[in-house]
Amino acid sequence: MRSANRLTFATRSTRIIWLMEELGEPYQLVPHTRDPSTFRSPPTLDRIHPLGKAPVIEDSTLVMAESGAIIEYVIATYGHGKLAPAQSGPAWARYIGWLHFAEGSAMMPLLVHLLGMLTGGLPDGLKGFITPDIEKTLKCIAAEILDNGYLTGSAFSGADIQMSYVLEVARMGKCWMPIHRWKNT
Amino acid sequence: MRSANRLTFATRSTRIIWLMEELGEPYQLVPHTRDPSTFRSPPTLDRIHPLGKAPVIEDSTLVMAESGAIIEYVIATYGHGKLAPAQSGPAWARYIGWLHFAEGSAMMPLLVHLLGMLTGGLPDGLKGFITPDIEKTLKCIAAEILDNGYLTGSAFSGADIQMSYVLEVARMGKCWMPIHRWKNT
Repeated sequence: MRSANRLTFATRSTRIIWLMEELGEPYQLVPHTRDPSTFRSPPTLDRIHPLGKAPVIEDSTLVMAESGAIIEYVIATYGHGKLAPAQSGPAWARYIGWLHFAEGSAMMPLLVHLLGMLTGGLPDGLKGFITPDIEKTLKCIAAEILDNGYLTGSAFSGADIQMSYVLEVARMGKCWMPIHRWKNT
Repeated sequence: MRSANRLTFATRSTRIIWLMEELGEPYQLVPHTRDPSTFRSPPTLDRIHPLGKAPVIEDSTLVMAESGAIIEYVIATYGHGKLAPAQSGPAWARYIGWLHFAEGSAMMPLLVHLLGMLTGGLPDGLKGFITPDIEKTLKCIAAEILDNGYLTGSAFSGADIQMSYVLEVARMGKCWMPIHRWKNT
């Protein structure tokens, strides 16, 4: 990626830094700090992208938000065959499946659980809705890693980077346990 | 897509049916009904994919969940250049950006809001966290459509199909208003 790029940092953005380091591509990191009392991203991010969210990248005139899309774009554009299967077929389908899953089905229940911890608890109805989904999600990740070593088979890919934050949120929410213990649950 | 495929139906699955109709590809629809009291997907879905979620597609031996990934895969595999830009460059980046955004940043606050309506309300802390995000998301969609006609420019794409359910959830949650009214907010 060109050195003119800027990368905006927040917790979710760690994945993009990791990705750039794996690819050995130059990048410029622009840190933005969350409001320490509200946990929200700062207004400076609104000037880069109307959603005001991190991570966001600037690559020439392109401004992109959404971690899964950023990882997919960066690898397709600057990966030269590294960190992802070729862009067709079942292996690629599984790769983009995990990329979308992380901030799609996987994250919502975990994030609601974590927000509940941070904001004074969740009502029973909402808790009852998210708890089975958290368990299914974590079992599914554990099964894949125990079977294959990585999420998309025997090779490390952008999907592993993207999903790492799901486990971070699970850890913050005290939902994760050492992976071998999932085998017998 | 081959006629051996099966498409598993739930509300989110409407998009995949719409996509297959747009592409004119044959498909087999397998309906699964939510539990009317819990709103949860039925156990029959667990036998197709360990996450037990809809939509899920079967294409030969490939089983895929996650709507954004399904749309991306189906268009790349069976689209023959329809409904998406070529798989590189800024237009494609914007296209996958919307595909990921729908069930990523966009859906979480809307779904939490809707779940709050269905399960007896949300605590103030959680409500305060999601409300600004809902407003930003809907303004961002409205601005794009008012400027360009479609989400990825002047042509209808899989991103418009994918994002349609975000507006459905906003409508169910009584958050959406006619698009021209967003212009002056």
